[in-house]
Amino acid sequence: MTGPMVGIVGAGQLARMTAQAAPRLGVETTVLAVDAHEPACGAATSVEIGDPSDPQALARLAKSCDVITFDHERVDPAAVELLERDGHLVRPGADVLRFADKAQQRRRLAAAGFPVPPFIVATSPEEVATFAESHGWPVVVKAATGGYDGRGVFVVADAAAARAIAAGLAGVAMVVEPLLDIEREVAVVVARRPSGDSIAYPLIDTIQVDGICVETVTPAAVPLCQATDAIALALRIADVVGAAGILAVEMFITGEGILINELAPRPHNSGHWTIEGAVTSQFENHLRGVLDWPLGEPSLTANAVAMANVLGTQDERAVVDGLHGALTVRGAHVHLYGKAHRPGRKLGHVTALGGDRNLALARARAAAAALHGDPIVSTPKEHCND
Amino acid sequence: MTGPMVGIVGAGQLARMTAQAAPRLGVETTVLAVDAHEPACGAATSVEIGDPSDPQALARLAKSCDVITFDHERVDPAAVELLERDGHLVRPGADVLRFADKAQQRRRLAAAGFPVPPFIVATSPEEVATFAESHGWPVVVKAATGGYDGRGVFVVADAAAARAIAAGLAGVAMVVEPLLDIEREVAVVVARRPSGDSIAYPLIDTIQVDGICVETVTPAAVPLCQATDAIALALRIADVVGAAGILAVEMFITGEGILINELAPRPHNSGHWTIEGAVTSQFENHLRGVLDWPLGEPSLTANAVAMANVLGTQDERAVVDGLHGALTVRGAHVHLYGKAHRPGRKLGHVTALGGDRNLALARARAAAAALHGDPIVSTPKEHCND
Repeated sequence: MTGPMVGIVGAGQLARMTAQAAPRLGVETTVLAVDAHEPACGAATSVEIGDPSDPQALARLAKSCDVITFDHERVDPAAVELLERDGHLVRPGADVLRFADKAQQRRRLAAAGFPVPPFIVATSPEEVATFAESHGWPVVVKAATGGYDGRGVFVVADAAAARAIAAGLAGVAMVVEPLLDIEREVAVVVARRPSGDSIAYPLIDTIQVDGICVETVTPAAVPLCQATDAIALALRIADVVGAAGILAVEMFITGEGILINELAPRPHNSGHWTIEGAVTSQFENHLRGVLDWPLGEPSLTANAVAMANVLGTQDERAVVDGLHGALTVRGAHVHLYGKAHRPGRKLGHVTALGGDRNLALARARAAAAALHGDPIVSTPKEHCND
Repeated sequence: MTGPMVGIVGAGQLARMTAQAAPRLGVETTVLAVDAHEPACGAATSVEIGDPSDPQALARLAKSCDVITFDHERVDPAAVELLERDGHLVRPGADVLRFADKAQQRRRLAAAGFPVPPFIVATSPEEVATFAESHGWPVVVKAATGGYDGRGVFVVADAAAARAIAAGLAGVAMVVEPLLDIEREVAVVVARRPSGDSIAYPLIDTIQVDGICVETVTPAAVPLCQATDAIALALRIADVVGAAGILAVEMFITGEGILINELAPRPHNSGHWTIEGAVTSQFENHLRGVLDWPLGEPSLTANAVAMANVLGTQDERAVVDGLHGALTVRGAHVHLYGKAHRPGRKLGHVTALGGDRNLALARARAAAAALHGDPIVSTPKEHCND
């Protein structure tokens, strides 16, 4: 009994967790990895060594696979189009991957009528300054391509800073928006199959530090009508975009309502909690979606589910030394990605289920703190902002 | 960051699911496989080819591993003792593996005061007949070694049949017991770590057909006091036996109370539901137990959880053709083991969660029926025995 072979461009932790979800469905995976030590290499059925920017490497991967998908968007859509023209099934396809360009993404979402922050696409510091004159300094400048996890996002205080940023970006287009007064950042993870049918997971509260989503709590603590609006928006975006597999939609909640921040057409950090916290994980639903198979139930398996990232600290023994402590936290699930230690690097995550949001988040934080080697602290009440 | 290497003797579906639970804990696995196509080979970090009955193959496995464990008991305890004498950590150890001999198991459990069915250990058909004269024909004869999944278990009607069975077993000792009037068969899955601490999963109803556990429903529908007794018995047995990792205890519930039927010192078919249905799966807890790490929470993630085996039917396309149908059953989880089709062979299982036992079992049966290519039937009420 051999099932379909799914090719994954990229071999990071997203590919790893996708590959881990495959065997029990009878699905095999091949990952395109730059080197054989990347996180997904041990989890996939087979590994193709090559650079995702090399069209020949993509062609080699495509040759042995029934469908191609991605664990990141740093791929040339034109190369993906070539694969499609050669008759290969690529999901999501080149048209969806073009949304990875933040300038295109913002323009297309605005054109389709979705609520987005006020913005311009600039190529010069003068355009940034003109925008700032009508919206006020500081402004937020985002590199249209090449950024991830907070990299390529800058808060720009004045015209001189704008010149420095523009020089650094060396011609890469800039999406410029006001520094918004954001009440909360949320995400909706949607899964869609090309022949129709899509599902959305419950609304996720994402807690960002320096542009990295470090914690999530589901369901988000927003009024029902707002959660419903957010989910409906995400499902409509998935349809308009033509998503296949997972599409993560990051949103801002502001005083004026919901604004779409960013899309990611793949399994996403904000959906890691779904492995234990939802009936079907985002990774299994990504596979089902790209294979155009029936999607799995996305509802919660507990009242509340929290996720905390495990990041490399200054102490390279912290994760190893803290593992036993983390495993003693009742209801916490440790996920290590098999990556070499580096300060600030995402080495894993912890998921915890609970009877309410506070309990779930407390457990996830306790387990992550053990893996970080954090000292035991108690926040003085006057410093609590929630 | 490299974690411990766990060696697993055997590479069937139990080893596969144990290996799948390892990477996210930073644990690596090597399986001892007879050939490279066994189910666990793709899931383990590495594979050692060799026969588990070959002491040299065991020694090769032990050399590269921090601890050795098992996915079956068809291993010579003397060979395991040699490994232990050479300083290798084997969990469970030779002393626990000796319990795989059903004659030894029954004698030791009886000697320790645990409730077991009336029995003798016989080597001749005359002894079987003598036992039957005081307990009545038919009797049940079990080969002390070599049996599994209903093989090596015989209902013997008379002295002539006893002679035929004894001749077939060619000197293997026989455990003889009355054909009991069994109300229900249940199992308790326990995890234990050598340095202390053990946990038990909730009591499991096991539904047996021809000696194979084909379905389970958890929690078992027995009075609380009986469930508590069963769990307490299993925890005490794990302690007396000195279990490391998972110990499955199969029990009969009869008019006279609970009787211990059989032990298995490893992850067990009756605990497959724990992957989604318990906070921590039996496979993760087996790893934690054999590594002497803190054990994970065993409580249920839903009100009720059911498991149904997926067995090969006469139609070798049934699983492939039925997969989409199975995936449309809300809340059902499909687990295929990557095995070649053969009628009657365990090819996978399905787990389903539900608000009550009926709903969970209905879902598991619906998904399994799709994978079996079963016709749609409705049982007439007069044939329902539950």
